[in-house]
Amino acid sequence: MIRLHHLNQSRSLRILWLLEELGQPYDLICHQRDAKTHLAPDSLKAVHPLGKSPVIEIDGELYSESGAITELLIERFAPDHLRPATDSVDYGHYLQWINFAESSLMVPLLLEVFTKKAGVTDNEFLNGYIGQEKHKLLSYLDSAVDGKPYIVGNQLSGADFMLSFDLIMLAQRQQLEDYPHIKQYAQQLAKLDSYQRAMRLEANHDKTSAV
Amino acid sequence: MIRLHHLNQSRSLRILWLLEELGQPYDLICHQRDAKTHLAPDSLKAVHPLGKSPVIEIDGELYSESGAITELLIERFAPDHLRPATDSVDYGHYLQWINFAESSLMVPLLLEVFTKKAGVTDNEFLNGYIGQEKHKLLSYLDSAVDGKPYIVGNQLSGADFMLSFDLIMLAQRQQLEDYPHIKQYAQQLAKLDSYQRAMRLEANHDKTSAV
Repeated sequence: MIRLHHLNQSRSLRILWLLEELGQPYDLICHQRDAKTHLAPDSLKAVHPLGKSPVIEIDGELYSESGAITELLIERFAPDHLRPATDSVDYGHYLQWINFAESSLMVPLLLEVFTKKAGVTDNEFLNGYIGQEKHKLLSYLDSAVDGKPYIVGNQLSGADFMLSFDLIMLAQRQQLEDYPHIKQYAQQLAKLDSYQRAMRLEANHDKTSAV
Repeated sequence: MIRLHHLNQSRSLRILWLLEELGQPYDLICHQRDAKTHLAPDSLKAVHPLGKSPVIEIDGELYSESGAITELLIERFAPDHLRPATDSVDYGHYLQWINFAESSLMVPLLLEVFTKKAGVTDNEFLNGYIGQEKHKLLSYLDSAVDGKPYIVGNQLSGADFMLSFDLIMLAQRQQLEDYPHIKQYAQQLAKLDSYQRAMRLEANHDKTSAV
């Protein structure tokens, strides 16, 4: 049995989409951000000491971290479908892009969120670093998806699910305009049936946007 | 053939230690941070578009992201030695801690580095967030290693290599004092022969500390 503890507007979107693609039965437990503070609710702390989402339960065992959950669900339920063979050259690239989405690319994106929340928007060092780092990373990603529907080896894989949340963050800030290949890649992913089902579930559940 | 592009005082320490533990022959190419700016040198940009370290080359193919490199090297050279069986419950925990080290725990640690570099050390929101988030994450890790020499299933695994860099960052800032189990865990890892060989290689190479 799989159970997903889902928080609106969070990294859990990656797992919601992945579960829709896997087609395995799962329970969806929805948690809601505070409409004013945008913080996660206390209900998540009752689930896991970190109080974060996504958290999944598989046969009674809890796992956190969206990168780990992505790899684990694919290992258990779609090893031949959503990842390259472990002895292929592409397997290393698959792991690289999974980590890129949550490590390298997330650093300037989160720094931008935090400096804005903190009201520190005129710091020369921070603005310079965020701008340059984002441009370097997005240029690299833009080249990597040039003319390709998926990031690794011409097939949908865990790396696409991981990148999707970064793309949603960037699109919301209108920051994909200068990166046409990333934009085309994001549009391609958004056409998939499982992606659309996941976004409908999120829209039904997300009360923040409507406030 | 394995080649590691290593940068002093960087996440590449994880991979240096892992390669020493694997016992596979490898080439070590050393890059040096600028002693004043602490920035990575241009020589790394010639290796990989992101200009970051670690980058490894396996049979002519380049891979970046320390989490990906850790998983890939273990998959190729030590699947029975440095990770739990992929069909075990511990495999999910192994993936979780690999991601925790570079995702969850790295967020407040990097925010602290950046706010210090930016001279923004008196912002109430940032200070509050960094302090609370670090304490929550370190308390969780402290419980997880209570009485244990390794983070997953009583054996050295990729998750320990990933956490080691976070522990080095925390120890340098004297931030392990309130977390006795993490401190004992860090000391235990530091006793391993392969760890000591890696730190000697780093010390021989790192010119920054001596400046």
